[in-house]
Amino acid sequence: MTVVKSSLADPDRKTVGDALQGALVDLVDLSLLAKQVHWNVVGPRFRSIHLQLDEVVTTARTHSDTVAERASAIGVTPDGRARTVAETSGIDTVTDGWVKDTEVVEIMVAALDAVIVRMRERIGTTDEPDPVSQDLLIGITADLEKFHWMFQAENV
Amino acid sequence: MTVVKSSLADPDRKTVGDALQGALVDLVDLSLLAKQVHWNVVGPRFRSIHLQLDEVVTTARTHSDTVAERASAIGVTPDGRARTVAETSGIDTVTDGWVKDTEVVEIMVAALDAVIVRMRERIGTTDEPDPVSQDLLIGITADLEKFHWMFQAENV
Amino acid sequence: MTVVKSSLADPDRKTVGDALQGALVDLVDLSLLAKQVHWNVVGPRFRSIHLQLDEVVTTARTHSDTVAERASAIGVTPDGRARTVAETSGIDTVTDGWVKDTEVVEIMVAALDAVIVRMRERIGTTDEPDPVSQDLLIGITADLEKFHWMFQAENV
Amino acid sequence: MTVVKSSLADPDRKTVGDALQGALVDLVDLSLLAKQVHWNVVGPRFRSIHLQLDEVVTTARTHSDTVAERASAIGVTPDGRARTVAETSGIDTVTDGWVKDTEVVEIMVAALDAVIVRMRERIGTTDEPDPVSQDLLIGITADLEKFHWMFQAENV
Amino acid sequence: MTVVKSSLADPDRKTVGDALQGALVDLVDLSLLAKQVHWNVVGPRFRSIHLQLDEVVTTARTHSDTVAERASAIGVTPDGRARTVAETSGIDTVTDGWVKDTEVVEIMVAALDAVIVRMRERIGTTDEPDPVSQDLLIGITADLEKFHWMFQAENV
Amino acid sequence: MTVVKSSLADPDRKTVGDALQGALVDLVDLSLLAKQVHWNVVGPRFRSIHLQLDEVVTTARTHSDTVAERASAIGVTPDGRARTVAETSGIDTVTDGWVKDTEVVEIMVAALDAVIVRMRERIGTTDEPDPVSQDLLIGITADLEKFHWMFQAENV
Amino acid sequence: MTVVKSSLADPDRKTVGDALQGALVDLVDLSLLAKQVHWNVVGPRFRSIHLQLDEVVTTARTHSDTVAERASAIGVTPDGRARTVAETSGIDTVTDGWVKDTEVVEIMVAALDAVIVRMRERIGTTDEPDPVSQDLLIGITADLEKFHWMFQAENV
Amino acid sequence: MTVVKSSLADPDRKTVGDALQGALVDLVDLSLLAKQVHWNVVGPRFRSIHLQLDEVVTTARTHSDTVAERASAIGVTPDGRARTVAETSGIDTVTDGWVKDTEVVEIMVAALDAVIVRMRERIGTTDEPDPVSQDLLIGITADLEKFHWMFQAENV
Amino acid sequence: MTVVKSSLADPDRKTVGDALQGALVDLVDLSLLAKQVHWNVVGPRFRSIHLQLDEVVTTARTHSDTVAERASAIGVTPDGRARTVAETSGIDTVTDGWVKDTEVVEIMVAALDAVIVRMRERIGTTDEPDPVSQDLLIGITADLEKFHWMFQAENV
Amino acid sequence: MTVVKSSLADPDRKTVGDALQGALVDLVDLSLLAKQVHWNVVGPRFRSIHLQLDEVVTTARTHSDTVAERASAIGVTPDGRARTVAETSGIDTVTDGWVKDTEVVEIMVAALDAVIVRMRERIGTTDEPDPVSQDLLIGITADLEKFHWMFQAENV
Amino acid sequence: MTVVKSSLADPDRKTVGDALQGALVDLVDLSLLAKQVHWNVVGPRFRSIHLQLDEVVTTARTHSDTVAERASAIGVTPDGRARTVAETSGIDTVTDGWVKDTEVVEIMVAALDAVIVRMRERIGTTDEPDPVSQDLLIGITADLEKFHWMFQAENV
Amino acid sequence: MTVVKSSLADPDRKTVGDALQGALVDLVDLSLLAKQVHWNVVGPRFRSIHLQLDEVVTTARTHSDTVAERASAIGVTPDGRARTVAETSGIDTVTDGWVKDTEVVEIMVAALDAVIVRMRERIGTTDEPDPVSQDLLIGITADLEKFHWMFQAENV
Repeated sequence: MTVVKSSLADPDRKTVGDALQGALVDLVDLSLLAKQVHWNVVGPRFRSIHLQLDEVVTTARTHSDTVAERASAIGVTPDGRARTVAETSGIDTVTDGWVKDTEVVEIMVAALDAVIVRMRERIGTTDEPDPVSQDLLIGITADLEKFHWMFQAENV
Repeated sequence: MTVVKSSLADPDRKTVGDALQGALVDLVDLSLLAKQVHWNVVGPRFRSIHLQLDEVVTTARTHSDTVAERASAIGVTPDGRARTVAETSGIDTVTDGWVKDTEVVEIMVAALDAVIVRMRERIGTTDEPDPVSQDLLIGITADLEKFHWMFQAENV
Repeated sequence: MTVVKSSLADPDRKTVGDALQGALVDLVDLSLLAKQVHWNVVGPRFRSIHLQLDEVVTTARTHSDTVAERASAIGVTPDGRARTVAETSGIDTVTDGWVKDTEVVEIMVAALDAVIVRMRERIGTTDEPDPVSQDLLIGITADLEKFHWMFQAENV
Repeated sequence: MTVVKSSLADPDRKTVGDALQGALVDLVDLSLLAKQVHWNVVGPRFRSIHLQLDEVVTTARTHSDTVAERASAIGVTPDGRARTVAETSGIDTVTDGWVKDTEVVEIMVAALDAVIVRMRERIGTTDEPDPVSQDLLIGITADLEKFHWMFQAENV
Repeated sequence: MTVVKSSLADPDRKTVGDALQGALVDLVDLSLLAKQVHWNVVGPRFRSIHLQLDEVVTTARTHSDTVAERASAIGVTPDGRARTVAETSGIDTVTDGWVKDTEVVEIMVAALDAVIVRMRERIGTTDEPDPVSQDLLIGITADLEKFHWMFQAENV
Repeated sequence: MTVVKSSLADPDRKTVGDALQGALVDLVDLSLLAKQVHWNVVGPRFRSIHLQLDEVVTTARTHSDTVAERASAIGVTPDGRARTVAETSGIDTVTDGWVKDTEVVEIMVAALDAVIVRMRERIGTTDEPDPVSQDLLIGITADLEKFHWMFQAENV
Repeated sequence: MTVVKSSLADPDRKTVGDALQGALVDLVDLSLLAKQVHWNVVGPRFRSIHLQLDEVVTTARTHSDTVAERASAIGVTPDGRARTVAETSGIDTVTDGWVKDTEVVEIMVAALDAVIVRMRERIGTTDEPDPVSQDLLIGITADLEKFHWMFQAENV
Repeated sequence: MTVVKSSLADPDRKTVGDALQGALVDLVDLSLLAKQVHWNVVGPRFRSIHLQLDEVVTTARTHSDTVAERASAIGVTPDGRARTVAETSGIDTVTDGWVKDTEVVEIMVAALDAVIVRMRERIGTTDEPDPVSQDLLIGITADLEKFHWMFQAENV
Repeated sequence: MTVVKSSLADPDRKTVGDALQGALVDLVDLSLLAKQVHWNVVGPRFRSIHLQLDEVVTTARTHSDTVAERASAIGVTPDGRARTVAETSGIDTVTDGWVKDTEVVEIMVAALDAVIVRMRERIGTTDEPDPVSQDLLIGITADLEKFHWMFQAENV
Repeated sequence: MTVVKSSLADPDRKTVGDALQGALVDLVDLSLLAKQVHWNVVGPRFRSIHLQLDEVVTTARTHSDTVAERASAIGVTPDGRARTVAETSGIDTVTDGWVKDTEVVEIMVAALDAVIVRMRERIGTTDEPDPVSQDLLIGITADLEKFHWMFQAENV
Repeated sequence: MTVVKSSLADPDRKTVGDALQGALVDLVDLSLLAKQVHWNVVGPRFRSIHLQLDEVVTTARTHSDTVAERASAIGVTPDGRARTVAETSGIDTVTDGWVKDTEVVEIMVAALDAVIVRMRERIGTTDEPDPVSQDLLIGITADLEKFHWMFQAENV
Repeated sequence: MTVVKSSLADPDRKTVGDALQGALVDLVDLSLLAKQVHWNVVGPRFRSIHLQLDEVVTTARTHSDTVAERASAIGVTPDGRARTVAETSGIDTVTDGWVKDTEVVEIMVAALDAVIVRMRERIGTTDEPDPVSQDLLIGITADLEKFHWMFQAENV
C-alpha cells in the first residue's frame, strides 16, 4: 500500500528511512533504559539521579516521536514495537534489580555513547539525500551530547 | 541486596509484586503499541484516532510509572526493559506498516480487552495482601475501561 | 443494539448499572437545585452562599459526568434527560421565587442528606460486583459529605 | 416579597422576564440533551462528536447562568428546576439508549433549530422594553447559530 | 487643536460625547466610593463585603477606561480629573470614618441606582447618533445592574 | 448545494451576506497591509510602530474569522481568496519597499478610515434584517475606531 | 466609634496617620492624573507614553490601597473620596483637552517631583513612631523615583 | 453541642474518629519534624535533602487537612493543637541543632516507618465502619510509603 | 559543631537569634491555632471565616520558614519542634471541640495581638545588631497587623 | 534607499532574497487557502478538518512572518501584498462555495505538494550563499511535509 | 550633562552612588563567576550544584539591575562594563578549566563572604543619606546571606 | 584532567572549541554592553530603546549559556570570566555616563555588526568538523541579524 508520496527519490528514501528507523529504536530503548534505572537506582545520590533520568526519558520520548513521524512524512513506516526495540537497539541492556547510583551513571554514559556514535553516522548519511531529516538528527544529537557531558561530569 | 523494607509480609509481597510487575509490562507495551499505530494509521479518521491514541499513550506511561514505583515502595524491583516487555506482555503484537483506521480501532479494543481482564484478576489477588496497591490498580482499570468503551463505541 | 462489551457478568452489570443510573439522576438534580437557589437566594449572607453553591454545582456536574461515562464503560446506557431527572431524583424540589439565605442552607443540608444516604447504599451494593465503580462512588460520597458538614456548620 | 427594584416598568418587566425565563429553560434543556447524546453516541465519528457536544454543553451552561442572573437583576425570579425544564422546554426529547452518530447530528440540528427560532422571537420582543437584555440574547443567538451551522455542515 | 477626525457629524458627536463624559465621571466616582467603603467597612460581614467591593472597583475602572478611550476615538477629549469628578458626579458622597456593613450595602445600592438611571438615559440618547458607543454603554449597564441586584439581595 | 438553512429570509440573507463578505475582504486586506508595513517600516519610531501594527494584524485576523464564520452560519459562503481580496478590497494598496515611519502612520490612518466608512454603512444595512450580524459589525467597528484614534494621535 | 486597637500610642498614631493619609491622597491623584494624560496625549511618541502611563496608574493604585489599608491597620480611617483628593492633593492639576507628548513628560516629571518631596518627609516623620509604616513608604518612594528617572531621561 | 449529623452509627463514628485523629496528629508532627531537619540539615547532600523534605512537608500538610476535615464531616472535632501533637504523636522527636545529612535520612526513614505502621492499622479498623474514610487513609499511605522507599534508597 | 559563619559578632548573634527563634515559635503556633479553628468553627459566618483562616495559615507558614532560614543564615539553629512550640509559644491555646464563629474572631484578635506585641519588641532589639533580620520582622509585622485589623473590623 | 546593510554579497543577497520572497508568497497564500476551506468545508469530517486547517493557518502565518523578517534582515524588502500574492503564488486557487470534506483533503495535498517542491529548490539554492536562511527554510519544510503526510494519510 | 535631578544633596548622592556602583560591580562579577563554575563543575554532586549556581546567577542578575537602575534614579550613572567589573570587583577570580564540586562550594563560600562584608558596609554608609537605597541593599544582603548559609551547610 | 570524552577528533575539537569560546566571550560582552546602555540611555526614545535592549540581553544571555555548555559537551572548558571577556571580546567598549538614544542605536548597530562578522566565520570553520555546533551558531546568528536589522531600521 503506497500511502504517502515521498519528496525523496527511492534510494534516498531508503537511506534516510533506515537512519530514522535506527534512531527511533535507539531512542525508544533509551527511554525504557532510563526509566528502568530511574526506578531501581539506590545510593546517596538517589534523588538527584532519579530526577535527572526523567529528563532523559522526556527528551528521548519527544525525539522518538519526532523521528517516527518524520519517517511517515517521507513515506517510510516506522517500527517502534517492543520486540523490534529489543532486537535491534544499539544499547546494551542492564541486569535486573537494584543498581547503585555510581553504576547508573556509568550505564548512562555508555548508553548515550553508543547512541551518539550511531547518530553521528546518521547525520553523515542523510546530509546529501535529505537535509530536512538531517537537521532533526542534528538537533537530537545536541541534546544527547549534553546529557552525555553531564553524566560524565558526575562520573569524575 | 535488601534495600527497601516492605510493609508487607513475604508471601504477600510476592503476590503483590507479581501483580505490579505484570501491570507494568502490560502498560509499557500498551504505550508502545498505541504509539506504533499512532504513527502508522491511515484512513479518513486518521486525525481523530491519531490524537486519541496519544491520550492512551499518556495514560499508559503515567500508570506504568505509578505501578513501577509502587513495586519499589514495597521492596520489589520492577522490570520494564524492552526484552522483558516483548516476552511477557499480555498484548498481541501488530504487523508492521500502514494500518487502516478501522483496523486500528479493532486492535485497540482487543489490546485493552486483554489488559483489562488481567487487571481485574490483579485487583482480586491484591485485595487481601495490600489494599494500597489494589487501590492504584482499581484507578488504572477505571481509565482503561473508559478507553475500552470509547474504542468500542467507534467500532459500531 | 449491544455496543459495549461489559467486564461484568449480566446480573452484576444490572446491579452496578442501577447504582450508577441512580447516582447520575441525583447528581444532575443536585446541580439544578443548587443553581436554582444560587440565583434566588436573598439575605445578608447572599454573596457567601451564592459562591458556595457554585462549588456544589461544579462538583455535581463533574461527578454526574463521571458516573454516566462509567455506566457507558460497563455497557449500560445512562439516562440524564430532564424528565428522567424530574421523575426519579431522590431530592425534594423547592418552591419557586426568592429564598432566604437561612432557608437555602436548610434546603442544601436536606438535599445532601438525601443523596448521601442513597450513595452509601450504592457503595454497599457495588462492593462485590464492581470495585472499580464502587471506588468512584466512594470518592463522590467523600465530596458530598464534606459539603454536608459545611452547610450544617453554617446552620448552627 | 419584593426584593429587587427593577429598572423596568411593570409591563416591560413582564415581557422581558418571560423572554429570559423561556431562554433559561431552553438552554438548560439543551445542556442536558447534549450531555445525554455525549454519553450515548456510537459510530465511527464518536470521538469528534463526543468532544463537540461538550462545547455545546459548556456554552449552554454559561448562557443559562447569564439569562437567569439577568432575570434576577430585573427583579424576576428565574426557574430552572428539573420539572420546569421537562415541562416547558422548546426542545423535543430523545429516546433512551445508544444513538448512532449520524442521528446525533440530526438531533442537534433540530434542537438548535427549535431554540434559535424562539430566541429570534425573544430578540424581537425585548428590543423596545430592555436593550440590555436584548443584547445578551443577541450574543447567545450568535453562538447557537454557529453551532447550528457546524452540525448542518457535518450533516451533508 | 483638531486631532481626531470623528466618524460622527458634529451634533451627534456633541450628544455622544456628553453621554460618554457623563459615564466617565460616574464610573470614576463609583470606583473611588467603592474603595472608600472597602477600606472603612466594619461589622460581621466585613470580609465578604470588602472582597465584593473590589470587584466593583475593578469593573468600574475597566469601564471608565473604555468610555474615556471611546470619547477620544470619536474626537472628544475625556475629562477624569479629581475636581471634575468631585463636581459633576451623579453619586452622593459618604461621610468620613468607619461605616457599618449594613450601611455600606445601602450606600452601594443607592450609588448604583443613581448611575444606572443615568446610564439608561445615555443608552437612549446615543441610539440614533452612534450605535457603537451605545453598545458599550449597554454592556456597562448590564454589569452595573448585576451588582445592583446583588447588593439589593444582601439588603433583605 | 444548499447546505446551511438560514435563519433569515432570502432578501435579508442577500443583504447581510453582502455586508459580511465586504467586511471579510476589507479585514483580510487590512491584515495583509499591516503586515506589509510591519516588515518594511523604517525610521526612529520603527519599534513602536512595528509592535503596534501586529496588534492591528491580530485584531483584523480575529475579526475576519468572525465575519466569515458568521456568513457560513447564515448560509452564505464566504470568499477570502487572495484574488478576491486583491480585486474587491476597499483599501488602497501601498508601494513596494521600505516605508518611513511617518508615512506608515498616514497609510494606516487612511486605510482604517476607508474601512470604517464602509463598516458604518454595513451597520446601517444589517440593522433590520439581522441584529445578530449587526452586533458583530458594531463590535468590530469599535476596535477599528480605537486604532484609528491612536494612529491619528501619533500623526500630530 | 473605636474599632481598631492601634499598636501605636496616640501621638504616634496621629503622626503616622497623617503621613499615610497624605500619601493616600497623593497616590490617588497621581493615578487620576496619569489616566487623564493617558487618554489625552497626542504626538509622535503617543503609543510609548500611553503605555508607560498605565504602568504609573497600576503602581499608584496598588500603593494607594497599601497605604489606605495600613491606615486602617493602625486604627486611622483613610479618606480617598473625590473631593478630598481634589482639595488636598499635592499635585498640580492639568488643563482639559489634548496634550502634546513632550508636555505630558514634563507634567509627569513635575507631578512625581511633588509627590516624592512629600514622601521623603513622610519617611522622616514615621521613622521613630512606626518603622512598619515607614518601610511601606520607603518601598513606594523607590518606585516613584524610578518613574521619575525614566520621565526625566525621556525629557532630554 | 451536636453540630454535624454523622452518616455513621455511634460506635463506628468513635472507631473512625479515633483513626482520623491519630492520623491528624502523626501528619502534623511529620510536617513539623520535616521542617525542623529541612532547616538544620548539613553535609554534602544538603541541597538535595533540603528540597526533598519540603515535598514531605507539603504532602503532610495537605493530608493533615484532609483527615481533619474528614473528621469534621463525620461529626468528630479534630484536635491539631501544638500540645496535643507534642503529647500524642507516634513519631520520636529529634535533638536540637545541626544534623548531618546521613542522619537526617535515617530520621526520616524511622519517622515514616512509625507513621506507616499506624496508618496500616487505621486502614484495617476503618474498613468495615467507613470505606470513605478508609479510602482517604489508603491514598495517604501510598504517598507515605513512596517517601519511605525514597529515603531508604538514599540510605544504602 | 560550628557550621555557619555568622556575619554578626557573638552578642549580636545571640540577640538576633533569640528574636528569630521567638518569632519562629509564635508563627508556627499561629499556623496551628488558625488551622484548629479553621476545622472547628461553626456558625452563620462559617465559610467566610474558614477561608480567611487559611490565609492566616499560609502567611504564618511562609513567614515561619523565612525566620527559621534567617536564623540558619546567621549561624543559629532554629527549633520548631512540636514540644518547643507547645512550651514557648506566646499564644494562649484554645479548648477542644466546635467553636462559634464569633468566638473564633475573638480568639484570632487575641492571638494576633499577643504575637504583634512581641514582634514589635523584636523589631526594637534587632535594629542595631542586624538591620537585615529587622527588615524581615518589619515585613512580617505588617502582614500580622493587617490580619489584626480585619478580625477587629469583623468584631464590631 | 539603502537601509539595512546585508551580511551577504550582492549576488548572494539576490539569490537568497528571491528564495525568501517566493517562500513568503507561498506561505501567505497557503494561509488564505486554508482559511478559505476552513470556512467552506462540509461533510461528515467537517469538524476534524475544520480544526486541522487552523493548525495549517497558524503554522503558515508564523513562517510567513519568519521569512519576511529574514528578508528584511538581509536587506531585501519583502512583499506580501494581496495582489502580489494573487499573481505570484505557486498554489492553484479553489472555486468559490461549499467544498466537500474529501475534496478539501485533496486540495490541501495538492497545495502542500506544490509548496514543498518549491521549498526544496529554495533549500538547494540558499545552501551556499546563506546557511542561516537555509536553516529557516529547512525547518519550514519539515512542518509542511508533516502536514502533507497527514492529509495524505487521511486520503486513503 | 545633568540629566536626572537627584532627591539627594550632592555629598549624599556621592556616598550613595559609590555604594550602589560597588554593589553593581560585585553582583555582575558574582553572576559571571557563578556561571563560570556552573559550566566547569565536575564531581558526584555536579547536577545539584549546577542547578544551585543558576539560582545564584538569577538572583545576582536581578539585583545588579536593581542597583544600577537605583543609581540612575538618584542621578548617578552606573558602570557595569566588562573591564570595570574585571578591575574593581571585590571577588577573587578562579582558574580556568574543570573544577571539582567540593572546590566549587569553597569558591562560592569565599565569593559570597567577600561580597557580604562589603554589602554590610554599604548598608551602614547609606543609612543616613538615603534609606530608600539602603532598603534595597538590605534586601539584597538577605538573599546573599541565605546562599552563603546554604553553601556553608554543604561544606561540612 | 580529562573529564569529558569528545565525539570529535582532537584537531576538530580544537577548531570547534575555539569557535565556541569566541562566541561565548562575544555574547557575554554583548549582554554587558546592552545592559550598560539600557541603564544609561537618555532622550525621547528612552523607553522604547530601554525595553528593546533587554530583549538583546535576554537573547545574549541565553545563547552564551548554549555555547558554553556546548563547549563542555565536546570536552572543552569554557571561559566566561570578567577579565577574559574584557580582554578578548570582539566588541568595542563604550564611554561611561549618559548616552543619547541616537548614539545608543549606533553603538548597537556597530556591536552587532562586529559579532555577526565573527559568527559567520565560525559558521564556516565548524561546518566540516561539527555540524551540531554549527547548527547552534547558525541559530544564534539568525537572532543577531534580526536585532541588527531592527537597530538599523531605527537608524534611518
